Amino acid sequence: MACSKYEYVKSYEQPNRVLNNSWFVVRIDGCSFHEFTKSHNYDKPNDKNGLDLMNRAAESVMRKISDIIIAYGQSDEYRRKTNLWGRKSEKILTYTVSLFTSSFVYYWDNFFPKIRLTHPPTFDGRIIIYPTDKDIRDYLSWRQVDCHINNLYNTCFWALVKFRNISEKEATELLKHSVSSDKNELLFSEFNINYSKVPKQFRKGTVLYRPRQKAKKTRSEYFNMRDIRDKEVVIDDTKDSSDEDITHPIWRCKYEEITINNILKCHQDIIQDAFWIDNEYLLA
Amino acid sequence: MACSKYEYVKSYEQPNRVLNNSWFVVRIDGCSFHEFTKSHNYDKPNDKNGLDLMNRAAESVMRKISDIIIAYGQSDEYRRKTNLWGRKSEKILTYTVSLFTSSFVYYWDNFFPKIRLTHPPTFDGRIIIYPTDKDIRDYLSWRQVDCHINNLYNTCFWALVKFRNISEKEATELLKHSVSSDKNELLFSEFNINYSKVPKQFRKGTVLYRPRQKAKKTRSEYFNMRDIRDKEVVIDDTKDSSDEDITHPIWRCKYEEITINNILKCHQDIIQDAFWIDNEYLLA
Amino acid sequence: MACSKYEYVKSYEQPNRVLNNSWFVVRIDGCSFHEFTKSHNYDKPNDKNGLDLMNRAAESVMRKISDIIIAYGQSDEYRRKTNLWGRKSEKILTYTVSLFTSSFVYYWDNFFPKIRLTHPPTFDGRIIIYPTDKDIRDYLSWRQVDCHINNLYNTCFWALVKFRNISEKEATELLKHSVSSDKNELLFSEFNINYSKVPKQFRKGTVLYRPRQKAKKTRSEYFNMRDIRDKEVVIDDTKDSSDEDITHPIWRCKYEEITINNILKCHQDIIQDAFWIDNEYLLA
Amino acid sequence: MACSKYEYVKSYEQPNRVLNNSWFVVRIDGCSFHEFTKSHNYDKPNDKNGLDLMNRAAESVMRKISDIIIAYGQSDEYRRKTNLWGRKSEKILTYTVSLFTSSFVYYWDNFFPKIRLTHPPTFDGRIIIYPTDKDIRDYLSWRQVDCHINNLYNTCFWALVKFRNISEKEATELLKHSVSSDKNELLFSEFNINYSKVPKQFRKGTVLYRPRQKAKKTRSEYFNMRDIRDKEVVIDDTKDSSDEDITHPIWRCKYEEITINNILKCHQDIIQDAFWIDNEYLLA
Repeated sequence: MACSKYEYVKSYEQPNRVLNNSWFVVRIDGCSFHEFTKSHNYDKPNDKNGLDLMNRAAESVMRKISDIIIAYGQSDEYRRKTNLWGRKSEKILTYTVSLFTSSFVYYWDNFFPKIRLTHPPTFDGRIIIYPTDKDIRDYLSWRQVDCHINNLYNTCFWALVKFRNISEKEATELLKHSVSSDKNELLFSEFNINYSKVPKQFRKGTVLYRPRQKAKKTRSEYFNMRDIRDKEVVIDDTKDSSDEDITHPIWRCKYEEITINNILKCHQDIIQDAFWIDNEYLLA
Repeated sequence: MACSKYEYVKSYEQPNRVLNNSWFVVRIDGCSFHEFTKSHNYDKPNDKNGLDLMNRAAESVMRKISDIIIAYGQSDEYRRKTNLWGRKSEKILTYTVSLFTSSFVYYWDNFFPKIRLTHPPTFDGRIIIYPTDKDIRDYLSWRQVDCHINNLYNTCFWALVKFRNISEKEATELLKHSVSSDKNELLFSEFNINYSKVPKQFRKGTVLYRPRQKAKKTRSEYFNMRDIRDKEVVIDDTKDSSDEDITHPIWRCKYEEITINNILKCHQDIIQDAFWIDNEYLLA
Repeated sequence: MACSKYEYVKSYEQPNRVLNNSWFVVRIDGCSFHEFTKSHNYDKPNDKNGLDLMNRAAESVMRKISDIIIAYGQSDEYRRKTNLWGRKSEKILTYTVSLFTSSFVYYWDNFFPKIRLTHPPTFDGRIIIYPTDKDIRDYLSWRQVDCHINNLYNTCFWALVKFRNISEKEATELLKHSVSSDKNELLFSEFNINYSKVPKQFRKGTVLYRPRQKAKKTRSEYFNMRDIRDKEVVIDDTKDSSDEDITHPIWRCKYEEITINNILKCHQDIIQDAFWIDNEYLLA
Repeated sequence: MACSKYEYVKSYEQPNRVLNNSWFVVRIDGCSFHEFTKSHNYDKPNDKNGLDLMNRAAESVMRKISDIIIAYGQSDEYRRKTNLWGRKSEKILTYTVSLFTSSFVYYWDNFFPKIRLTHPPTFDGRIIIYPTDKDIRDYLSWRQVDCHINNLYNTCFWALVKFRNISEKEATELLKHSVSSDKNELLFSEFNINYSKVPKQFRKGTVLYRPRQKAKKTRSEYFNMRDIRDKEVVIDDTKDSSDEDITHPIWRCKYEEITINNILKCHQDIIQDAFWIDNEYLLA
């Protein structure tokens, strides 16, 4: 509204736009989360509540920004060929990171009712453009492989620290040159952990996406659907979760599927083709 | 740590850096704050608590990022010739916006103990480079002129709505073609408001900066200073605040200076040279 | 090699890279070519030598930069998913424009032996990224449609000026609201020009690309090929050129196909699928 | 003019603008000039005609683009706070490089009347932003120091090759660990070259700039000036050129000052303050 001789400084702004007709990712990472999780007593190797809070924040973002087709992980958001805000990079990036941060703090008490936040937690973000379907799938595969490798390592590390009672430094040293099979063997023989039965949320991370929209519905179907939505049905996307061993003392949580009406949270493999064939509309 | 054949996707990142040896601003704006302030019953035309919460969030950011030399307003941050994170734009931008957002939600209860946040508030941000001292001063002048023009308008608008009891639409219509002198006259003659005595926080916005560091101190000076810091002295940077009329019913708040140990919050004019002569070290 | 306290200024460079795994175009345009063609007596509406010189310059660029898969038109270059110079934008852009410019001046005498260049001609350029195959095909279609529309207009315009003997201003006025069919009719009825028989180089522009590489050759085939190359065979990619009417006095040139050993120059339609099916390896 | 369904591809362009109110440099470098100078028989260590041709090309650029305040060296252009083409980076960059290239080829015969260009020479370029006066002066100092260091090395190198008759490889080896004083001593004792008397064009490079415009003139002054201009006076900016030893057989050229009416070409020191005090209007 206002007008003054100083207004010329507005012309110094140099807005960038995300390239047209390309997939892009808003990658969000916690800042100093090593300290944060320590000072807020997160469970090791995995804190179910902490992960669920991250997923809750991701869900907030997906609810507000309908152009996001998939979110993965602890901390990543993926967006579709959108025209949101004219694809202005800074706007999309900061809005997404801000909403994620805001939701994290806002919902903290729901997930950690007994732990007080000691300071405002912070996230950073960046936008990465992936022009082809293969690029975006490879990005997601990279993240899920990363999740697996880190989780296998961390499970060993904390099993050694908690149950063999060695120091963190000793555990680091011990695992330095170990390969996957060494770690699997260690978990099984010494700690009675079958890694393939570790809860999928920890092994695979969490994938959030919108279920396929049915094209046409009769009136009765419509109301049935509303009923279902009102009841917050759990869509069982983890049929083999009976295989999971959730009683091992390394995980203090009771492991449950949390699913919300029109955004699915699951722990499926997104590296293999199966997920993308079942959900071909996502990249369509 | 992890390694896989998908890792090549990392090479798609295209980090930008903020131009060397230049001032830059991280400008932060609330998203949909018209609705937000309405649904959280902010006072009109000015909500002292709301402004103080914004200042608290700005203070959080300035405490964490020592390279920021000045913050102004409701929502702006200004940074010095910094080497922070190699001047990576996205990192600086998202960290700042995230920390501002996080602090806003974190400190909400301190400023609005009786109002519950109904949803996670969101901010966006952008980085603007101002190469010369004149540029950055003109930017700050632009914002402070803007603050004045908006506040004069809003004070008239809400006086009309609250005390003359006309609709918002009628008030908009009535003020459409008015100039500054018309608005001053209206406030004075009909509502007994001398605009020049409106609290400076509303007329001038808030400036945050670090007081000059004294170079050398005797031991006794040092302890005196610590005493002072411990007592959280109010540094009276608004000598003429006695002139402020803080009893008018249009402002429900009790107006007080809030000042914190090593970051000053004041409401000085930053358009004229005086501020910059007194604080020449800021742009030095 | 050199080293001094001033060398820090090198750190102010901010090289951009062209997004990975994406097509991109280097679009080259003549600067002030309206004046240039006038002062160098180019034929109107089309100067065959002028077009051939542009094509010669494009050919120079394609010879030097083997990652270019296709060039079109008067002035455009298209590049493949290349790793040339680490995809540094400024390097790719300026090298291409410089080589095009240099070749234009260098080969001037070959195409205009009797006209002296009066000053150094100049070109500008820009890089545009087209992530998908559809994008790049649509870009090429856009240019070829543009060529057609401009050529139809210019043919009418100069026929009016040259043969009806009206002023350029009158011709502009007369064509202002005409549609395609009006222009075709005008050419045919008044000037005896069947537009569909106008030389294809003028109607379609010129496409440069590399013919498919045969995978394996016998020794005799290899030598046969060398023979052929030495003789600069004309590859007849314009089978219907017999349909062209090249005798009309509006074109002063003798129209010939120029084709060079391993880069084809032709005037095919690149809007329809046929070209892309015949040459599917180009976008493969 | 033209219009089609394909025109949407124009929206993929992402023009950047050079930051407002900042100095910037268009740095131009020859591509593969080691080979080019060899195949065109350039004199070693310095080819006066080659340098003069570069300066002629730089002069062309400065004549066309009046916002350039200074050009230095073999190959660099520096531009003022300009509004040229809305500061569009790609346009400014490619126009400048193209005009430089074009002028280089166009004026080749003037400087090398007996040597035929064997292929189109090519240059690349980049834009670098220098926000402060100190930055731009340090950039120029960097280049002039670089010129000195390279020239001292090359003078030794070619003296060894030409007069001591050793191979290029041996010369490289011999100079590997030498410092400045070693090289000065070598030149003086063995080759009778006092380096401080080497022609300034080789030691200092060439600076091009516009002389200060006098504000007001009487009519007679005006005509005097025109007279002078018509005669292409040599402005003697190298008062100490009498000190130069231009007879040594290592330089085959006759060394002369070339100066053109309203653009000065000189070989002054631009590292010290003197030049900038004498010509304070350049950065004003």
